[in-house]
Amino acid sequence: MTRAFSFSVKAQDGAARTGVIATQRGDIRTPAFMPVGTQATVKAMFVEDVAAAGADIILGNTYHLMLRPGAERIAKLGGLHSFMHWDKPILTDSGGYQVMSLAKLRKISEEGVAFQSHLDGARVVLRPNRAIEVQCLLGADIQMALDECTPFPASRAEARVSLDLSMRWAERSKAAFEAMSAPGQALFGIVQGSVYPDLREDSAKTLEGIGFPGYAVGGLAVGEGHEAMLQTLEATTPFLPEDKPRYLMGVGTPLDILEAVAQGIDMFDCVMPTRSGRHGQAFTWGGRLNLRNAQYAEDLSPLDPESACPAAQYSRAYLHHLVKAGEILGAMLVSYANVQFYQELMARARTAIAGGTFADFVEDVRRRYAGPENTA
Amino acid sequence: MTRAFSFSVKAQDGAARTGVIATQRGDIRTPAFMPVGTQATVKAMFVEDVAAAGADIILGNTYHLMLRPGAERIAKLGGLHSFMHWDKPILTDSGGYQVMSLAKLRKISEEGVAFQSHLDGARVVLRPNRAIEVQCLLGADIQMALDECTPFPASRAEARVSLDLSMRWAERSKAAFEAMSAPGQALFGIVQGSVYPDLREDSAKTLEGIGFPGYAVGGLAVGEGHEAMLQTLEATTPFLPEDKPRYLMGVGTPLDILEAVAQGIDMFDCVMPTRSGRHGQAFTWGGRLNLRNAQYAEDLSPLDPESACPAAQYSRAYLHHLVKAGEILGAMLVSYANVQFYQELMARARTAIAGGTFADFVEDVRRRYAGPENTA
Repeated sequence: MTRAFSFSVKAQDGAARTGVIATQRGDIRTPAFMPVGTQATVKAMFVEDVAAAGADIILGNTYHLMLRPGAERIAKLGGLHSFMHWDKPILTDSGGYQVMSLAKLRKISEEGVAFQSHLDGARVVLRPNRAIEVQCLLGADIQMALDECTPFPASRAEARVSLDLSMRWAERSKAAFEAMSAPGQALFGIVQGSVYPDLREDSAKTLEGIGFPGYAVGGLAVGEGHEAMLQTLEATTPFLPEDKPRYLMGVGTPLDILEAVAQGIDMFDCVMPTRSGRHGQAFTWGGRLNLRNAQYAEDLSPLDPESACPAAQYSRAYLHHLVKAGEILGAMLVSYANVQFYQELMARARTAIAGGTFADFVEDVRRRYAGPENTA
Repeated sequence: MTRAFSFSVKAQDGAARTGVIATQRGDIRTPAFMPVGTQATVKAMFVEDVAAAGADIILGNTYHLMLRPGAERIAKLGGLHSFMHWDKPILTDSGGYQVMSLAKLRKISEEGVAFQSHLDGARVVLRPNRAIEVQCLLGADIQMALDECTPFPASRAEARVSLDLSMRWAERSKAAFEAMSAPGQALFGIVQGSVYPDLREDSAKTLEGIGFPGYAVGGLAVGEGHEAMLQTLEATTPFLPEDKPRYLMGVGTPLDILEAVAQGIDMFDCVMPTRSGRHGQAFTWGGRLNLRNAQYAEDLSPLDPESACPAAQYSRAYLHHLVKAGEILGAMLVSYANVQFYQELMARARTAIAGGTFADFVEDVRRRYAGPENTA
């Protein structure tokens, strides 16, 4: 029997909460960080190591996968889980964000968004029902309604128009999902409204009216800055149902994440651990390290003595050498260590919330990340 | 107590033999294939997987390591084994071959070879005693005498001059090794002589006169072609002591290797499994596969159903996708599968020699590698 999608909060500490999202492919402990598996791979990592790092769920990108190898092809090959040998939950985005950031000749209309593939120039139209169809073909456990990620900055009027379109698309996405999805799958709505508190409130209430098993906050981490992001989040989360998971899309640094957890966010995704890993930037319990720096050339201390990750046991000197020499193993080891650091961060956050010490934990991490290498 | 370097032949089948090289860091089962770890990493592979694939020994490149991160630095950091977390034997080349293929403004004299680093243009002189010093600083278990890899083609007169220089360097290398090496380490001499049988014989005898615990055949696989390589080998191996390991440098394809084993060669190294792996070329028990080919886009069969390698269990369709998308995971998986294929090839060769069926085994592999994708 298919296990129904559900969410339960186990403990709260202020607005921060820890709980479990139950899915047909396993439990997701929240607050959760989802490593990004853009093209059916978490970049430079064996999928076994993504699980060993502690990830309960990964994210796949609809835009990339629909263009290559194609959603119909992945379905024919048995779905995304089987294709990439990952049997835990997968969340897919709707494709809307990456159409806007990667595709050429984009044109948004009521119908959807038309664009040219960045790979071969092919003309593609992504409509709300196609976005859901693609996610169903991939076999995503958690799917996202198609939205327009309102560009930043946007005037109030522009944000209103964009938001209203996203809300109509959310409704169409839900109808498509109800027609096409498999038992146990879930569709999340996405709150927009740029940095305008009343628009965010309006969006949250509209989505709750439509009714989703989870709600995402979109349109942040798009250049508005840390303070504006937190303020917008403050104006949004109080209007999201308490008994449903809340997902802040595309965020972020360790402190961004903890500050959002403090406001009641449950789920995160970001390319930061893997992208930084490919460029020799390490996240550790001692703060951020740029392994290219000459200071590490003869540093025999392990990358992160506090981490349990096998990759973090290599010396900084060795990793410095690999990064300087452009060796793939450097990307492999630092990506693995970073993904595991993010998972350990979430695990410690969950423990702190359960123990009622979350504020102290945030201050502890703030001190660890106060060094000179910690500017993003 | 340090274990002495030794070699024992366990079984012979024609000229092919199987045995064990015992070193202070463990046994090397022969015939052995050594994956190449140029810059203190077997490219795109975790070192644990190199061991899991079955490798008893890896090769490190003196030229690369002396330039970056530097031999003195590696020594200061505890030696190459500890630096890269590989505790089994390491063989290092002398650097001579790569000076000729990579460095700029090379100038060979009686003293040694002067060149400009390909990294930063620094002026470096590699003399026989410095080549040994570098290998001792790295902590290599098996070291190679500095030689000039005679370019191909070379006239008989050129080959003679080059060979004589290499023989004088071999003598100086041995003297340096005796002065500098640690207990348990071994130095091999390298036979040169281009494609001239009498020069090869002369070189082999000269080296035996100097006396080494192992002998390499150098100056092959440099453009002379498969037949000339085999003929030169036939003119060389009979003059190499039977009770010492014989190492054919830089070879080669699966069939090159088996044909050399048939002539009595015990050790091999080649970048082919890893370099091919990074370019989507797979070696399997069904022959060579170019994973970029569109024919694999929907091929759900595992890369190599006959291989025990975890990486070879992924579908060809998935690997095709990763390779086409330029994903690092594609390089990781195909490199792992290739390195393990080469190890499985050597394991089957050892079993066949012990069982007296080596000729049949070579014919079996020849049939497997007769397909259209098997041209190098």
